Amino acid sequence: MFNFNIEFFGYFAAILTTLAFLPQLIKTLRTKKAEDVSLLTLIMFLTGVFSWIIYGYKISSTPILSANIITFILNLLILIFKITFSKY
Amino acid sequence: MFNFNIEFFGYFAAILTTLAFLPQLIKTLRTKKAEDVSLLTLIMFLTGVFSWIIYGYKISSTPILSANIITFILNLLILIFKITFSKY
Repeated sequence: MFNFNIEFFGYFAAILTTLAFLPQLIKTLRTKKAEDVSLLTLIMFLTGVFSWIIYGYKISSTPILSANIITFILNLLILIFKITFSKY
Repeated sequence: MFNFNIEFFGYFAAILTTLAFLPQLIKTLRTKKAEDVSLLTLIMFLTGVFSWIIYGYKISSTPILSANIITFILNLLILIFKITFSKY
């Protein structure tokens, strides 16, 4: 029961910190701008998340691997759209 | 040597995904606006990071605990300044 609670917080945390970037992606697509979103934050965060993917692969952790792959894709799309929209 | 490499990726990942929010905080303070930053993303992310803090505390993991406390503070400040600046 105690273990269940610990695991629950871990999964809840992983799901939230992963899906949190979906509203940012939707907002960026809807407003067609992400001027206020820091480019350096996106680059540092993507590099960090990519390192988590390598770490998750090396220690064979499916939760770390899967959560970070989704986070990476969402943030890469935010970066791509930020750059695309900034040209106009 | 192999273990050193694994640990290196873990620490490198943790440092980058934590400090990544510092440029966003500086940019928000400098431009005095964070209109394009999604409020829902910040709320979901803060809730997720808070859950990571509880998880880190429960499993007695100092790296998870410390990295997420810093991430929480940085994002809470971004949220506070976003709300403050949106009033003008």
